[in-house]
Amino acid sequence: MSTNQLDKKSQAWSALFSEPMSELVKRYTASVFFDKRLWSADIQGSLAHADMLAAQGLISADDLAAIQKGMAQITQEIESGAFEWKLDLEDVHLNIEARLTQLVGDAGKRLHTGRSRNDQVATDVRLWLRGEIDEIGVLLTELQKALVDVAEQNADVILPGFTHLQVAQPVAFGHHLLAYVEMFARDAERMVDLRKRVNRLPLGSAALAGTSYPLDRERVARTLGFEAVCQNSLDGVSDRDFAIEFTAAASLLMVHVSRLSEELILWMSQSFGFIDLADRFCTGSSIMPQKKNPDVPELARGKTGRVVGHLMGLITLMKGQPLAYNKDNQEDKEPLFDTVDTLKDTLRIFAEMAAGITVKPEAMERAAKKGYATATDLADYLVKKGLPFRDAHEVVAHAVKEAIAAGVDLSELPLDKLQAYNPAIEQDVYEVLSLRGSLNARNILGGTAPEQVRAQVARHRARLG
Amino acid sequence: MSTNQLDKKSQAWSALFSEPMSELVKRYTASVFFDKRLWSADIQGSLAHADMLAAQGLISADDLAAIQKGMAQITQEIESGAFEWKLDLEDVHLNIEARLTQLVGDAGKRLHTGRSRNDQVATDVRLWLRGEIDEIGVLLTELQKALVDVAEQNADVILPGFTHLQVAQPVAFGHHLLAYVEMFARDAERMVDLRKRVNRLPLGSAALAGTSYPLDRERVARTLGFEAVCQNSLDGVSDRDFAIEFTAAASLLMVHVSRLSEELILWMSQSFGFIDLADRFCTGSSIMPQKKNPDVPELARGKTGRVVGHLMGLITLMKGQPLAYNKDNQEDKEPLFDTVDTLKDTLRIFAEMAAGITVKPEAMERAAKKGYATATDLADYLVKKGLPFRDAHEVVAHAVKEAIAAGVDLSELPLDKLQAYNPAIEQDVYEVLSLRGSLNARNILGGTAPEQVRAQVARHRARLG
Amino acid sequence: MSTNQLDKKSQAWSALFSEPMSELVKRYTASVFFDKRLWSADIQGSLAHADMLAAQGLISADDLAAIQKGMAQITQEIESGAFEWKLDLEDVHLNIEARLTQLVGDAGKRLHTGRSRNDQVATDVRLWLRGEIDEIGVLLTELQKALVDVAEQNADVILPGFTHLQVAQPVAFGHHLLAYVEMFARDAERMVDLRKRVNRLPLGSAALAGTSYPLDRERVARTLGFEAVCQNSLDGVSDRDFAIEFTAAASLLMVHVSRLSEELILWMSQSFGFIDLADRFCTGSSIMPQKKNPDVPELARGKTGRVVGHLMGLITLMKGQPLAYNKDNQEDKEPLFDTVDTLKDTLRIFAEMAAGITVKPEAMERAAKKGYATATDLADYLVKKGLPFRDAHEVVAHAVKEAIAAGVDLSELPLDKLQAYNPAIEQDVYEVLSLRGSLNARNILGGTAPEQVRAQVARHRARLG
Amino acid sequence: MSTNQLDKKSQAWSALFSEPMSELVKRYTASVFFDKRLWSADIQGSLAHADMLAAQGLISADDLAAIQKGMAQITQEIESGAFEWKLDLEDVHLNIEARLTQLVGDAGKRLHTGRSRNDQVATDVRLWLRGEIDEIGVLLTELQKALVDVAEQNADVILPGFTHLQVAQPVAFGHHLLAYVEMFARDAERMVDLRKRVNRLPLGSAALAGTSYPLDRERVARTLGFEAVCQNSLDGVSDRDFAIEFTAAASLLMVHVSRLSEELILWMSQSFGFIDLADRFCTGSSIMPQKKNPDVPELARGKTGRVVGHLMGLITLMKGQPLAYNKDNQEDKEPLFDTVDTLKDTLRIFAEMAAGITVKPEAMERAAKKGYATATDLADYLVKKGLPFRDAHEVVAHAVKEAIAAGVDLSELPLDKLQAYNPAIEQDVYEVLSLRGSLNARNILGGTAPEQVRAQVARHRARLG
Repeated sequence: MSTNQLDKKSQAWSALFSEPMSELVKRYTASVFFDKRLWSADIQGSLAHADMLAAQGLISADDLAAIQKGMAQITQEIESGAFEWKLDLEDVHLNIEARLTQLVGDAGKRLHTGRSRNDQVATDVRLWLRGEIDEIGVLLTELQKALVDVAEQNADVILPGFTHLQVAQPVAFGHHLLAYVEMFARDAERMVDLRKRVNRLPLGSAALAGTSYPLDRERVARTLGFEAVCQNSLDGVSDRDFAIEFTAAASLLMVHVSRLSEELILWMSQSFGFIDLADRFCTGSSIMPQKKNPDVPELARGKTGRVVGHLMGLITLMKGQPLAYNKDNQEDKEPLFDTVDTLKDTLRIFAEMAAGITVKPEAMERAAKKGYATATDLADYLVKKGLPFRDAHEVVAHAVKEAIAAGVDLSELPLDKLQAYNPAIEQDVYEVLSLRGSLNARNILGGTAPEQVRAQVARHRARLG
Repeated sequence: MSTNQLDKKSQAWSALFSEPMSELVKRYTASVFFDKRLWSADIQGSLAHADMLAAQGLISADDLAAIQKGMAQITQEIESGAFEWKLDLEDVHLNIEARLTQLVGDAGKRLHTGRSRNDQVATDVRLWLRGEIDEIGVLLTELQKALVDVAEQNADVILPGFTHLQVAQPVAFGHHLLAYVEMFARDAERMVDLRKRVNRLPLGSAALAGTSYPLDRERVARTLGFEAVCQNSLDGVSDRDFAIEFTAAASLLMVHVSRLSEELILWMSQSFGFIDLADRFCTGSSIMPQKKNPDVPELARGKTGRVVGHLMGLITLMKGQPLAYNKDNQEDKEPLFDTVDTLKDTLRIFAEMAAGITVKPEAMERAAKKGYATATDLADYLVKKGLPFRDAHEVVAHAVKEAIAAGVDLSELPLDKLQAYNPAIEQDVYEVLSLRGSLNARNILGGTAPEQVRAQVARHRARLG
Repeated sequence: MSTNQLDKKSQAWSALFSEPMSELVKRYTASVFFDKRLWSADIQGSLAHADMLAAQGLISADDLAAIQKGMAQITQEIESGAFEWKLDLEDVHLNIEARLTQLVGDAGKRLHTGRSRNDQVATDVRLWLRGEIDEIGVLLTELQKALVDVAEQNADVILPGFTHLQVAQPVAFGHHLLAYVEMFARDAERMVDLRKRVNRLPLGSAALAGTSYPLDRERVARTLGFEAVCQNSLDGVSDRDFAIEFTAAASLLMVHVSRLSEELILWMSQSFGFIDLADRFCTGSSIMPQKKNPDVPELARGKTGRVVGHLMGLITLMKGQPLAYNKDNQEDKEPLFDTVDTLKDTLRIFAEMAAGITVKPEAMERAAKKGYATATDLADYLVKKGLPFRDAHEVVAHAVKEAIAAGVDLSELPLDKLQAYNPAIEQDVYEVLSLRGSLNARNILGGTAPEQVRAQVARHRARLG
Repeated sequence: MSTNQLDKKSQAWSALFSEPMSELVKRYTASVFFDKRLWSADIQGSLAHADMLAAQGLISADDLAAIQKGMAQITQEIESGAFEWKLDLEDVHLNIEARLTQLVGDAGKRLHTGRSRNDQVATDVRLWLRGEIDEIGVLLTELQKALVDVAEQNADVILPGFTHLQVAQPVAFGHHLLAYVEMFARDAERMVDLRKRVNRLPLGSAALAGTSYPLDRERVARTLGFEAVCQNSLDGVSDRDFAIEFTAAASLLMVHVSRLSEELILWMSQSFGFIDLADRFCTGSSIMPQKKNPDVPELARGKTGRVVGHLMGLITLMKGQPLAYNKDNQEDKEPLFDTVDTLKDTLRIFAEMAAGITVKPEAMERAAKKGYATATDLADYLVKKGLPFRDAHEVVAHAVKEAIAAGVDLSELPLDKLQAYNPAIEQDVYEVLSLRGSLNARNILGGTAPEQVRAQVARHRARLG
């Protein structure tokens, strides 16, 4: 057996070099301390590559068996924490390959036939990300289910619907929550869409130009569950679209989380007092003994910045890079890893937290009564009596003005006062002017009537399985 | 006929207000000077709404006819430039509605029945954007076709393939261009995917809660060609995901443009000298008489920043907004408009420019000879002779070192020198060491061999129609 | 007199070119429709350059006089709207120079001696931005003054201070507003700091390398009021740091505006009801007759995204550009112009709006009573009685728990109940437990006691002049 | 001595809470695993606070002595790695305070008198950042010195100066490097400017409103070397401007690094071949034996994205936050820490790398001869003979066209050919047409003449000390 040039990493390429890499540079350029996270994908990819090399007669059956045995041992070493990761070996790929060669000799050295770290790392990241996207999909489903449950329980609870944070019209609290279910459903759709573009195999692109070995790329794709192979080797090694597209979808997801968080924080503020969050999701203060703070939604709102920052970082990274692989690309991993972690933690905690929301229906209803929330209903009432909408709107504005001056709600104005605005107004107006009447009236697809809310709950349940 | 409260815009809602809007505020909050661009979508949406109102018996057939007639006239006025846009009427919606009411009286006032500007503007933007996405799709196809044509013409032209901008391995220039076709193909896929989420109808969400009028939202969706209706009214009026998702896809597209631009600029630089761009895409200098500058790719590279900035702006806009509609959302339009314009102009000009590229094959080949581009081929040759890859790599590194010292290419080392590194080396090695031999050898799916390039050209032609 | 090659712009450099610029390219690369905004700076810069050329004997006194006369006429033409801007002449510089040569012949052609559009545009932008920074400085002062006025009027008004949007401790509304004065004061500081780096003269850098004419750059700097000359010609033409630094400072300013806006919107929401904004800063709804919406702060909050987007765009623009001038840089102008406009409009409108805030002290005080805002005061009281702070904090938490259970405020617990927690508690505790007592107690530099607020008002007045 | 409520962190505020924090939440909200980095600043701040408490008679001299002794021991425990950081204690502050109370009992519990974690963490971060800014200042000086050294050695070396990456005019390589010195000098200026705004003391702001203890904030400021105290407590605890301003300056610095990196990568590419980087800053390839890649500049260019991402993340974080402290703010630390690390590593490695640049003057000069770099000189020559600049420009363009057609440089056209363009051209034109003649002619402040380069070297040396 020949000597193992990977015993020290520099020997992977050092014959040409007249001086060793500076220690400072070694630390600056090494990726092993973060990319070791890809170890499982790296081994999976190597095994599929080796299997294909053997099937194509490029390595022997014995070599394949040796590689498989070696990788099984390495897997066990890594899982048990016994594996020694070496900075000198720069990255996850060389660390594993060097250990393999230690364990199985020349068979290990044959593994790299027809591939390069350029296509290897691209394959690893895609394999790993595909798995994470699937987990995120599950977590998104769980969060949606949790919100649907709370929505169902609150299909009849009246909340002041706001536009411009001003009381607009009464809405069902369940309806309000279902708006977020729509958002998270779109996030899940986007994950499905982008997964297709993640799930393509770069392996076989080699360094940049393909390889002269007769590899069977389709076989490797099948083994690893990839839907397609990258059709251009230069693109295969340099493409990081999938990372940017994922991070963009993640940013949108976090924007949704930030909006929900903003509302939870508002609703839990004493001036609103619409909900309470379970103590286990809150913290107190080291100085103010009375405090109970909604830390989780605040932190989640803050973490939006983190994910958006990663998106911008990745775009900046790729902008203006010539083909093919450049070392810049190594900077794709940390933002991607942190985005995945942030998403998964946040989704998990929000699904749990949803069940810990205590709703205060009286406070919500009290607030809904403050802002003439049924004024539009009065206008609609007048339209049904024959007024053009624009005229009805004008009439009601005057009525509201009078009610404000009198310090009463529209429903508290006596019939004769109302009739002074328009003689067509009759006793049945008071049903229209009630919060519940207003709510029930919006019984249109997508509207806030409890009947609609329940229909949507059923639709989501069917969809979410 | 009643008076037209929209004669002056403030009368759309001013009955409640004790003082007119400050002039400064009027200018700060008005959107008509940019959102008038949506006029056609606005009229289209209004006609579909009116048609449905009539079908549901909410307005009379006469009203519908009047609205249709009025809108036809307004269309003609706008197209001819005769329409007078008024700042006082704030936005495109009120400008058109006010004019309609001037023209057809009460029928015009009935048009707003069951809708609000909140769902109206969301509908307008989606309608408009859907059309633009379709145009962008066409332009993306044209750009891909143009690149495929140049790729086909250059399937055999040898270019030094770079990694780290260092000569790596020879690639076909056609292969290199096809990498960009892959990128633009993914951009097109993304446009198709996101179009589904753009193409949903918010109308019927009214201000935020739905409406008490028995609207037939599915009918409106069919009339306007929407694939689905928004299932939650709060989400319907506040969702701007589609704008962010579009801008994110646009940013990726511009990143691809910026990478291609970077390469065009490099290639046209005298030190590379690989291509020339037609004079009509270049400018000279006001001071240096000899200059011919690749302005178009430079500017396109620069415009990446503009689009990425819009993405960041839109995300910042939506972050932390409570439901439902807030005035912040008005800021969605200008970045969206400018993104669409930038994309369309850039795609159009790049498709034209592709045909104006003069390729200089000798310069490319000369450059490919500078960097020991076939060293990997020698290593692969040794592997085929039985050496493990890692050992072969080491041997070749030493041979390269000697060749550098001697100032010759690997192919210029005599056989006995090469055999000193490994006795298995024979005369046939010189074919392996030639650029063309190296190129042809990478005859694997996705690889750079001219045969593969031609196969990919055929695949793209079939795909692009 | 020789022919005027600038009659059509392409002749500024076209002798070398075999075909005219494509119309598409002309539109894509032209900047005149936005950079004409720089006309005044451009003329100012040209006059200073001409003056120096004459002083150095590079042009004759007659030429100088002709240039001055021509520029006076051009100024008048532009101001009166008579000037015809031509797309064919690409940018503001060639438009003005071409007209000058039309008017004064060869003297006009001599103006460009020793300069290039590269250093000319850099000079123009800096001159223009310097003026805008000064205007922004004035507007920042005015906004601070307006806030200080409202702060003074509300030095004694009690507001619930929030952390985590939970009631924390009572603060003076005036104190709260002064927090924003601190922020805007820092913004003003930053403008002063960065102005130094804007105010350096690139002219004399010529295209990139300096010039062989014996220019007196210091003289031009003095004429134009620049503090220094750029010391390196390559840097002089390619530096856009000043634009990024300005936009970064603008982004921070807008973050402050967005925070103030968020609070104004919250405070005006019915559930808070702390303030009202004057009608002239609000709008109503086209559908809900009762609405009065805080459009201005909402839009300002939204415009934060716009400015932040410009920052991101400019950074993306410059990232990875090799020296010296590249056409990418032309993309610096629009974001800069829009940032300046957004800042000035926003500052102006906020200064006006501050005076239009109606404060509702009862609502504020009522809200302050909801959240046990004086619990910390009770803990501090116990510390003064000898308890370690951590123990006091624990005791008070229990007391708050009991008060919550009883549905009363801490100040409503009878003395014996309180003494059960700690026997050192005496009658004087009730003063400590009052909102006003708590407020007055924080009489420390930077604290919320009205005395401190008044001292700060005085300090700001002195500072703001 | 009372029990230590901090033995388990929840007891810092748990009396009010009916259930313990969820484990998931604990991990989500804990910061100790990153903020422990602030330990030294935290202890420094606590000691200054304790010293002041004693001076004001708020704690006894014995308490102060106990605190000092305890903190000395904790310092030693942390430095030796013996300190046990506990997730349950959430952050660096509670970890240290809990240990202090274990060690010194009630004195430890008195330390938190008059302060809150809100002002404590703000103080810690500022103290820490101030130190890092000073280190960055030193590293910036070292990098500038290294570049100045290389510039001096290359004051006479001719490089083709590019605009639009097209050969423009000859410049000295030293001049080119000094452009970067200008950039880094501005970065250093910005660090000095923003340090003033970092170096203000929030301590004494307490939770948000100041405190009722008679603290002497000026004394604490003096002890800790702060230039001023924050004048508003609400601003004191919620301000993160300094983090954003620092990250913005860091982004600009990285943009400069990315530009220099881009050029190093271009220059080291075989087609340019202008420089070589020492082997110790490069890596090879695992597949291509001949490769030597400029990893360090590539990675540095890539890391620009990371820092820009942090800037965008921090802006997104703060946008729209109401006062005062919100938990979102905890997200300020990781981006700040990573920005500082990236900057310091990058500056250090670039200063080292500068000395490892091998310049290849012949390649540079050869490239400068390719692009008619002295055409402007010919135009200037004609101006000195009396032609208006615009006419001279036109004449030279024609001469260049002829030279291109003939495949020769301008300096290779015989005198009679040149005189055909203008009879005033004489033999002395050939000096003007030489690269060195052109270089020397630009002997103007900021110009590229070697004499100017040496003057600038001297200026920078004086400035950098």
